[in-house]
Amino acid sequence: MLKIALAQVNLLVGGIKANQKKIIQTSQYARDELKADLIIFPELSITGYPPEDLLLRPDFINHANQTIVEIADAVSDIDIVIGFPELDHGNLYNSAGVLRDGKVLTRYKKNVLPNFGVFDEQRYFKSSNQNCIFTLKGSTIALTICEDIWKNGLIEKNKQAGADIIITLNASPFYAGKIHQREEIVCQQVKQTDIPLVYVNAIGGQDELVFDGASFVVNAQGNVVFRAEEFEEQVAVVEFEKNVPIKNTCAPLYNIVSSEYKALVLGVRDYVYKNGFKGAILGLSGGIDSALVLAIAVDALGADQVEAVLMPSKYTQNMSNEDAILEAKALGIKYHTIAIEPAVKAFTDMLSEVFAGIKRDATEENIQARCRGVLLMAMSNKQGKLLLTTGNKSEMSVGYATLYGDMAGGFAPIKDVPKLLVYQLAEYRNTLSDVIPERVITRPPSAELAPDQIDEDSLPPYSVLDPILEMYIEQDKSAKDILEAGYQIKDINRAISLVDRNEYKRRQAPPGIKITPRAFGRDRRYPITSGYKGIIDE
Amino acid sequence: MLKIALAQVNLLVGGIKANQKKIIQTSQYARDELKADLIIFPELSITGYPPEDLLLRPDFINHANQTIVEIADAVSDIDIVIGFPELDHGNLYNSAGVLRDGKVLTRYKKNVLPNFGVFDEQRYFKSSNQNCIFTLKGSTIALTICEDIWKNGLIEKNKQAGADIIITLNASPFYAGKIHQREEIVCQQVKQTDIPLVYVNAIGGQDELVFDGASFVVNAQGNVVFRAEEFEEQVAVVEFEKNVPIKNTCAPLYNIVSSEYKALVLGVRDYVYKNGFKGAILGLSGGIDSALVLAIAVDALGADQVEAVLMPSKYTQNMSNEDAILEAKALGIKYHTIAIEPAVKAFTDMLSEVFAGIKRDATEENIQARCRGVLLMAMSNKQGKLLLTTGNKSEMSVGYATLYGDMAGGFAPIKDVPKLLVYQLAEYRNTLSDVIPERVITRPPSAELAPDQIDEDSLPPYSVLDPILEMYIEQDKSAKDILEAGYQIKDINRAISLVDRNEYKRRQAPPGIKITPRAFGRDRRYPITSGYKGIIDE
Repeated sequence: MLKIALAQVNLLVGGIKANQKKIIQTSQYARDELKADLIIFPELSITGYPPEDLLLRPDFINHANQTIVEIADAVSDIDIVIGFPELDHGNLYNSAGVLRDGKVLTRYKKNVLPNFGVFDEQRYFKSSNQNCIFTLKGSTIALTICEDIWKNGLIEKNKQAGADIIITLNASPFYAGKIHQREEIVCQQVKQTDIPLVYVNAIGGQDELVFDGASFVVNAQGNVVFRAEEFEEQVAVVEFEKNVPIKNTCAPLYNIVSSEYKALVLGVRDYVYKNGFKGAILGLSGGIDSALVLAIAVDALGADQVEAVLMPSKYTQNMSNEDAILEAKALGIKYHTIAIEPAVKAFTDMLSEVFAGIKRDATEENIQARCRGVLLMAMSNKQGKLLLTTGNKSEMSVGYATLYGDMAGGFAPIKDVPKLLVYQLAEYRNTLSDVIPERVITRPPSAELAPDQIDEDSLPPYSVLDPILEMYIEQDKSAKDILEAGYQIKDINRAISLVDRNEYKRRQAPPGIKITPRAFGRDRRYPITSGYKGIIDE
Repeated sequence: MLKIALAQVNLLVGGIKANQKKIIQTSQYARDELKADLIIFPELSITGYPPEDLLLRPDFINHANQTIVEIADAVSDIDIVIGFPELDHGNLYNSAGVLRDGKVLTRYKKNVLPNFGVFDEQRYFKSSNQNCIFTLKGSTIALTICEDIWKNGLIEKNKQAGADIIITLNASPFYAGKIHQREEIVCQQVKQTDIPLVYVNAIGGQDELVFDGASFVVNAQGNVVFRAEEFEEQVAVVEFEKNVPIKNTCAPLYNIVSSEYKALVLGVRDYVYKNGFKGAILGLSGGIDSALVLAIAVDALGADQVEAVLMPSKYTQNMSNEDAILEAKALGIKYHTIAIEPAVKAFTDMLSEVFAGIKRDATEENIQARCRGVLLMAMSNKQGKLLLTTGNKSEMSVGYATLYGDMAGGFAPIKDVPKLLVYQLAEYRNTLSDVIPERVITRPPSAELAPDQIDEDSLPPYSVLDPILEMYIEQDKSAKDILEAGYQIKDINRAISLVDRNEYKRRQAPPGIKITPRAFGRDRRYPITSGYKGIIDE
């Protein structure tokens, strides 16, 4: 009987000392309480993932390599598999080390280094073409790391080398459907090679990424026999009898909207706490976006850690204030109301001379949004609370947002959530408890920066806009492709030209949580200065 | 006699159509006026460099590949060497094509793909290990691209394959000393292999990068026999007699401060014009930073395209206003004065209830800076002028700047210029004509956000701070290394902890021009959420 512990733990990027402590304690727990023979931590567990350019610092790399030795020293009577940036003859590798009896028994160097999407591993690491196996209680165990098993070849190679069990260390970030996709690919690989596999994933929020956990074990037939919870820390043991994993608890595969919601909650919680903020603050407009962000923030941090500010102007409808207050009361949070008119008037007067004779345009709308930004930032600064912005992906895509206005803030929870999904998430949240008034969901969305303004005055309806944006931004479809998918030229050209010309705004947006296959930020690297015109001639 | 034209031209990232037109016209000019047999354009000339994630768009790649054929069709009687993203059997390469008589004669696929610093080429391209030669008028010519010749091997390989002349297409961005470094490395490679080389570099500003041109030709002995001007477009011909380049004009190697200044000027000019702005606007404080940015902007765009705003508060000294006005007058630009007090008072009153009983802190300073940000952005929005921020690298490093306040703007010309270099550049600019008052250079720097405030109240003196920052940020030195270099623990720890904890501000900063070996932005990718502590225990 071989007992393998899966350590689905939340580690801190750059926090080697804290991670060391957690790894030691978790290993001792697995040995003493779970009677595990072997414990497996996620990819680059010592440094957290992704450490980005910290990997270029010699002091950081030396500390990480020294720490491996210290952990080996500190824990005996259990094998520990740990991910670390291995310095070997002056080259850096993304490695997994096996610690046994105070020594590093063996090291596996990652073969396949992803360098797409959010991944930059070829910026830091050399790849290897060697596999790595070791034996424990008569079983031969092979090590792999994340991207390795998304490509063909390495599992087979390990099997031919005599492996009985494949282990894989991962830091596989979430996006919608990723959990299903990941299992499907891994199970397919396993079926082809007829060998059981233990998949350990990272969990936790790290800037734009959320790691969802959902670690699992697959038997040689390609069936999942164990699955850890998604978005929760968990240390579980799976028993292998003659290299066959014994069926254990399987957390359900949840529906995707609920997974997205959990990703947003964990992303906010970890950004706030890992960065040492004393809670969060946000502007509450009575619209759907801020209502959703408030619910996420309260679910992440607790009602006593969240504060909201209503900042009405003369364009704010009464129902907006009423609904915002209903939301604050439903969630039990503290809120303030500060009308923005005095500041707007001060700026208008100060600019009256230079603007004399020039007609009103978006400038005056931006001034209102920026007065709100100044107020919120003042309250954030004074209290050490993180200011959350409430813009969604549709707005970020087309630049329907004011830089330093509603875009002001440290974190943008729903910046990767398209507007139609905002509605779905709001409705999902209301199934847990009723916190977002029905009217907020049903009324036409408005920025309320001019009389009787609604979003659809400036933009195609979201039911048209969102699919166009997804095809253009996430799937790299051309305007012609989108036309063939049945959309109108004017909507396509309007959407695409807005996306193209608003890169400068996105570049200054706060980070937010990736939940789609392609988010803005590290995931989509576009030039600001660009002659590319995606539109088609009308 | 073989005549080779070096096309050091300013191309537009993403602007395939505009680049096509320029490439055709330049080729015709080289053929008709310069009687050239061959013209060489920079790396990825069709798309500009770096096209970043535009390279993931199938429509973009198809357009680029189609355009090569069209250019070949359009120009005869001269060989054209052009850089393009080559799609070959479903793989993408960073390639150079030789166009002759309406056909693509041959294609070279880049061997060495840089994936460090600002470069992400392995994100997009496959590499090749094949060299490529072609013959023209009896000479055998080998093609290489940029990074290829910074590594050993390829020049030698081409020589063994019979090459008489090496050609290299480049998009080599500027930083201080790069021009000297580049020539040194190339000349050394040439000396080892005893073969002449033609080096064609891109020129122009592209977001954070400036390509400096300074193309050159080296003879087989490793001596530079031709050098184009730095930071200027130039199409020049070099004659080869029996594969020996004949000595031609050599633009001087300028001193580094003057090159840095030119880089800043070109970077601003191209950002403004390539993005279609109607000039630029900035806040003029009477301090050295805004004085320098103003001079750069006027040199880049002309006095009639630049506007300044003085925004005094009760903490602004008279000499600040006086000096700001002197600067505006010396450069002949339009300026406005708008006191910020009414807006500051409005916010103070609006917040008096929520801030009741809480003591004054940086919040109140930030409100002043943000009132200025709102005013400047309003003027920028109203007129379509780009708002330039005036923060330097020392401030960006330690976060001595207000988000949405003095950091508000579309472009940050001196964000990669450390404070000590700001002074050097100001003094250099004054040698051309006297535009920055002496007092601005000699008085102690101050943010003027509180009574009698000077920078050194909060920060180590810049003569200490700047070297520490360079070691920590640009050279990845540890605190211990810096201590050994002779600095004080308290200064080191203060500087490093400020750098570490201000990544969130930098992430929302506007882009600016890279002039050091490591700039912020694409060049330095740090996590915001991070447990890394660079400081040492005191």
